[in-house]
Amino acid sequence: MPRYKLIVAYDGTDFVGWQKQEPPDPDAPAPAPGEEPRRLYLRTVQHVLEQAVRKVVREPVVLVGASRTDSGVHANGQVACFTSRPDPSKGVGWPIERGTEGLVKAINSKLPRDVFVYSCEVVDKKFDPIGRAVEKEYCYSIVTGQVRPLWDRRYVFHTWYELDAAKMQQAADLMVGEHDFVCFSQASHGRKTTVRTIYKCEIETPQPGKFVVRISGNGFLYNMVRIIGGTLVEVGRGKIEPEMVREMIASGDRKLAGVTLPPMGLRLEWVRYEEGNRE
Amino acid sequence: MPRYKLIVAYDGTDFVGWQKQEPPDPDAPAPAPGEEPRRLYLRTVQHVLEQAVRKVVREPVVLVGASRTDSGVHANGQVACFTSRPDPSKGVGWPIERGTEGLVKAINSKLPRDVFVYSCEVVDKKFDPIGRAVEKEYCYSIVTGQVRPLWDRRYVFHTWYELDAAKMQQAADLMVGEHDFVCFSQASHGRKTTVRTIYKCEIETPQPGKFVVRISGNGFLYNMVRIIGGTLVEVGRGKIEPEMVREMIASGDRKLAGVTLPPMGLRLEWVRYEEGNRE
Repeated sequence: MPRYKLIVAYDGTDFVGWQKQEPPDPDAPAPAPGEEPRRLYLRTVQHVLEQAVRKVVREPVVLVGASRTDSGVHANGQVACFTSRPDPSKGVGWPIERGTEGLVKAINSKLPRDVFVYSCEVVDKKFDPIGRAVEKEYCYSIVTGQVRPLWDRRYVFHTWYELDAAKMQQAADLMVGEHDFVCFSQASHGRKTTVRTIYKCEIETPQPGKFVVRISGNGFLYNMVRIIGGTLVEVGRGKIEPEMVREMIASGDRKLAGVTLPPMGLRLEWVRYEEGNRE
Repeated sequence: MPRYKLIVAYDGTDFVGWQKQEPPDPDAPAPAPGEEPRRLYLRTVQHVLEQAVRKVVREPVVLVGASRTDSGVHANGQVACFTSRPDPSKGVGWPIERGTEGLVKAINSKLPRDVFVYSCEVVDKKFDPIGRAVEKEYCYSIVTGQVRPLWDRRYVFHTWYELDAAKMQQAADLMVGEHDFVCFSQASHGRKTTVRTIYKCEIETPQPGKFVVRISGNGFLYNMVRIIGGTLVEVGRGKIEPEMVREMIASGDRKLAGVTLPPMGLRLEWVRYEEGNRE
């Protein structure tokens, strides 16, 4: 009963997020005039990838992802798992002798061009990509200035303000460590505890006018990276002082933190597990 | 009666090319069952940009572009011109005192996110962006290997074959000079002469597995860059020898040259005019 772990990348622009959603009830009454038209299909990464895997293994496997990225959010190292036993008598499953590289190629051949599987390995049969994750890294990309991004516009957040990277780094340093991050979370986070540990929060400036917030931690609350990003932008443009981050964390007051940045700048970079290296 | 010259960039993916096309006749009979549905609107860059300019100057100006890029082809330095005289009594035109920088900002504020105007200058009133062009540069981007491009997929052509850049450069060198390029043109080119001068044809390898064909000349026939690109790919993968380019040009036989590469790898880089520098 082999269990497979896939490393998956996707451009989230044309998806309503990772997680499969129930399609709207086809028997529901038609929308009243002026109401939004009913969407007939919700395009999620989980659904699209699950369909591709099902075509390859010819059985209704269930795919579980490490991180439920939001609508419009990208991933370069999402982790997704499924279990499938080859049974030649029924013509289902993936023949072990064809290897995991062959499985990757077969799945990719069924995927649209905005999703790609980098690699696959066999993991133990109880492997849970959510529960066993010990660290995740996200990056949030920002461009500044008078030239609105064209080629990168699906992957970066653009602001007209100039940003001060040194001030942003001072504020970012105060994020590192174990804190109650409730002030950087949307109210509907639905978690028992809002204490998380941030291992790293770095401001990279790969080229003039470009800023990447690279952040890793043992877990993130709902919208946490986007609110931290919004806070760092407000620090960078001089609207608030870096030291204010201490007060935000101490107060637990969402209103003291910055705005939630839009999804297109955010990308899940990798998920690390107990037993292995970054994947 | 000032005439304005704009430098325009666009992501051609979601356009059916530069040139405005007549919308289908709304009085035509409805398509029969099984026929393609009638398109109600043809999204062209010229139309979208013209609409933006018309909103700013509040008169029905006509926009002329230097190069009629095909469906799916990009531009980083397309040139587009229009004439508009400010007339405060009618509330039309662009007030000279608000400057060309203000005009650029006003037009950009009316444009969708896949078109962007970099700059604007006032040119002489007879300036013809097609007739006065003396040199154009295009680049064609190719990626090779087992990893299908994800983030760049709208801007590169992907091939599974490995390519030999040195061989490609040998073939590219034979393109340079004044030749009859009819073998590198689609039959329906509709031009009197098929003689053109190529000033430069360079194979750049900015990173492993990435190849850029950078080509400039005094003019290009229909699909010429894409067919030259296809020929260089066949040379690079060893299917034909670099020296074959001589024979292709001498014979004028389209069948000897390579395939036409798809549009997404092609980008118009700049257009140069008699009186000035690259723009």
